Amino acid sequence: MTEAAGSEAGNITVELELVAEVVSQQLESMLSVGNYDAVKLLLKPVQPVDIAEAIGNLPTNLQALAFRFLGKDEAISVYEYLDSATQQSLLRLLRSGEMREVVEEMSPDDRARLLEELPAKVVRQLLSELSPEERRVTAQLLGYEAETAGRLMTTEYIALKENQTAAMALEIVRRRARDTETIYSLYVTDAERCLTGILSLRDLVTADLNARIGDVMTGDVLSVATDTDQEKVARTIQRYDFLAVPVVDSEQRLVGIVTVDDVIDVIEQEATRDLYAAGAVQAGDDDDYFTSNLFTVARRRIVWLSVLVVASFFTSEVIAANEAVLKQVVLLAAFIPLLGGTGGNVGAQSSTVVIRGLSTQSISVLKPLQAVLREAMAGALLGVLMTIVVLPFAWWRGGGALVGVSVGISLLAITTLAATAGAAFPLLFDRMGLDPALMSTPFITTCTDVAGTLIYLKTAQWLLLNLPQLGQAAGISTQFLAASAF
Amino acid sequence: MTEAAGSEAGNITVELELVAEVVSQQLESMLSVGNYDAVKLLLKPVQPVDIAEAIGNLPTNLQALAFRFLGKDEAISVYEYLDSATQQSLLRLLRSGEMREVVEEMSPDDRARLLEELPAKVVRQLLSELSPEERRVTAQLLGYEAETAGRLMTTEYIALKENQTAAMALEIVRRRARDTETIYSLYVTDAERCLTGILSLRDLVTADLNARIGDVMTGDVLSVATDTDQEKVARTIQRYDFLAVPVVDSEQRLVGIVTVDDVIDVIEQEATRDLYAAGAVQAGDDDDYFTSNLFTVARRRIVWLSVLVVASFFTSEVIAANEAVLKQVVLLAAFIPLLGGTGGNVGAQSSTVVIRGLSTQSISVLKPLQAVLREAMAGALLGVLMTIVVLPFAWWRGGGALVGVSVGISLLAITTLAATAGAAFPLLFDRMGLDPALMSTPFITTCTDVAGTLIYLKTAQWLLLNLPQLGQAAGISTQFLAASAF
Repeated sequence: MTEAAGSEAGNITVELELVAEVVSQQLESMLSVGNYDAVKLLLKPVQPVDIAEAIGNLPTNLQALAFRFLGKDEAISVYEYLDSATQQSLLRLLRSGEMREVVEEMSPDDRARLLEELPAKVVRQLLSELSPEERRVTAQLLGYEAETAGRLMTTEYIALKENQTAAMALEIVRRRARDTETIYSLYVTDAERCLTGILSLRDLVTADLNARIGDVMTGDVLSVATDTDQEKVARTIQRYDFLAVPVVDSEQRLVGIVTVDDVIDVIEQEATRDLYAAGAVQAGDDDDYFTSNLFTVARRRIVWLSVLVVASFFTSEVIAANEAVLKQVVLLAAFIPLLGGTGGNVGAQSSTVVIRGLSTQSISVLKPLQAVLREAMAGALLGVLMTIVVLPFAWWRGGGALVGVSVGISLLAITTLAATAGAAFPLLFDRMGLDPALMSTPFITTCTDVAGTLIYLKTAQWLLLNLPQLGQAAGISTQFLAASAF
Repeated sequence: MTEAAGSEAGNITVELELVAEVVSQQLESMLSVGNYDAVKLLLKPVQPVDIAEAIGNLPTNLQALAFRFLGKDEAISVYEYLDSATQQSLLRLLRSGEMREVVEEMSPDDRARLLEELPAKVVRQLLSELSPEERRVTAQLLGYEAETAGRLMTTEYIALKENQTAAMALEIVRRRARDTETIYSLYVTDAERCLTGILSLRDLVTADLNARIGDVMTGDVLSVATDTDQEKVARTIQRYDFLAVPVVDSEQRLVGIVTVDDVIDVIEQEATRDLYAAGAVQAGDDDDYFTSNLFTVARRRIVWLSVLVVASFFTSEVIAANEAVLKQVVLLAAFIPLLGGTGGNVGAQSSTVVIRGLSTQSISVLKPLQAVLREAMAGALLGVLMTIVVLPFAWWRGGGALVGVSVGISLLAITTLAATAGAAFPLLFDRMGLDPALMSTPFITTCTDVAGTLIYLKTAQWLLLNLPQLGQAAGISTQFLAASAF
């Protein structure tokens, strides 16, 4: 976690997203002409994350050259921010001695992420070069499941003892400040390394120097387990405005902490996932859509598209099966897309608010049945409002009362049904322990399409048979229909 | 910003989202029977945010009673977390003396948010009761536009001078620790209150006690302006893993800081907004969908629905205008929803990834035209893949080559067009300085529907006229069509 410093390229204020681009261009031209003093001057005020992006933008042959200009501490920070392709190519290009030190001193969580991406052979090689302690920590982190607190956490934290004084604790903080991820949350453990309390550096600096840590700390500690899902870890830190949350194993021993900066990335990642699900795109591990090749892109989209196309086959079946009524009143076809589309849109709205509500937990003010009922009522209300506009249009465009009334009646039924289904399916999935976002908007849209088309055509058929006077304006004979109906 | 403490209700570990509910139930029964000692014991280990939610869940007549059990500092924290309805009802129910102190000591940013929601009369009353300094600060914050750094920031920060020593600075930090939002980021200003440097508490505690602050601080400071959009503030903190970012006015004077906990809420709020836009729901100010009444819900949905219904009228027009070809081959109608739907889904995928890419800036690796071209190619590729499945089905279900070939050709055209439009519209909006999320998925879906239906019916018509042998299997005469075409 960086704390508080900043960069502007020179004295010119550059738009945030352009800093790395500008640095990268200057870096490339300086390196090509061998103006190495300028490189050092250029990089001095730039933030590690921007240097990492700038190096990532360089041609491969210049990346290693640029990386060598960084001081030791800076090289480590920059390396942590590099994308995994550049990390790997630096590992190949630079002498293993140079890289060993960088890998040894990386944050354990960033190192675990790096090793995950590497071929097994390279991992074994790298692990064998680490000090026994770092090797142990890395192997431990790699042992936890992806997307859990165990994988997200860092093992670099400051643990104090209850019988230490505030003065002793401050001295420990001072000594460990450089090589630990955060010094702002401090943890108190007993002889078995079990977590017994927590205090902030704020508590410590305001405490009397002779006070016992056991008296200053807070004993009621909220912690997460190593196998807690990363989304839940993120919600905990977000809800309580923590800077970090401790991670304990099954025996309540403190094994690591998750810091707020990692949590922001998790929240962003989960939001991307929800959005992609809403758009029927399969999310990747990283937000790497724009850097992956066309076939990966197609693969991440074709699965959902195929499912939806097959679902559409049912709509085709419904229409084909009701060919008779369409033959009688071809203009009925003109409103199939409108009805399917409106049903889909209402269903999409309902599933969107419910899925997001489940994700942010804002839906918890309602019981599931209440939420579904509320959506059903909202759907009916929206249906009434839209019928006021759509019925006259359909009457006019459809050449008479038959089409108008069929569209009006089915619009009401479809919006109510769509809103109910849009709310109920994600809630059902959630209840069954599945990801509610799987009940994505496009899926609900497509289901609504099938049901809506069926309701519409059956309504029209029924009206033609039972209230034939409605069809008279359109000059429709009901004889053929009567023979083929139902 | 709370730092690091936690709560479990008693010794039983309760699911995070249930803590407040459990506390609220126990609180209600204890208050009703007048067991006030138990109330104090119950609330002691509970986090402010959970107490706030528990109080919010109580019947109105018990809320004020419960609130009075909190110690002064705790009452302030809890009040900051209360929802705005409960905040307002406490203001009414409690004696103004009790509340004056709470409002006086709230964080300036939380107080500004409270006052924003209150009737002008109450605001004047409250402001007049504040100390001159707090009144000035509050009025200043309220003067900034909503959703800017100025509105998000707090004016409680620690400012140091370059010629102070580390020992002096530590003493200032110790003295101010209780009443300032964060002590972990420290700011250095000159005589004109202009920001000249920044240092973290980590830098300070590791510095030599006699070192000059001017020598310890980092001079290259990244700051935001009071009118910087909150989303950009959030991206800055996220990108650089800051705990806080300083806010300066147009003369570079330090006027406040934005802390990471506020930024997490902004990121969440912006993600909700993007998701709601993708689902054609208008986002509210807060994530308050499930607590607002049915008419507010309908109002937030009807606007987009109406726009989309009117857009659907065009699809109806296209179908009605091509009644002739449908009359000849009624089964053509069976594939209108499939084509519109698939086009819509491909367009939704493209707009989803582009809108999200603009939001997380991950799209910046590509130039806008590159991105559109890439999507167009992806659309064409997906179209080819789907045609392989859809064409045989349409041939069979549609009763012959005419429907099969029409569906195949138009599917390819529609997916390519939909992907291009789905990518181009949000990019165009972004370029024009508008919110790309306005080019929402449903909007693109509906546009694709119109274009797709037109392409499909015109293709079928052209095939019937120019390759009449395709229609023979379906027993279609082309005479009528020839007379009415185009």
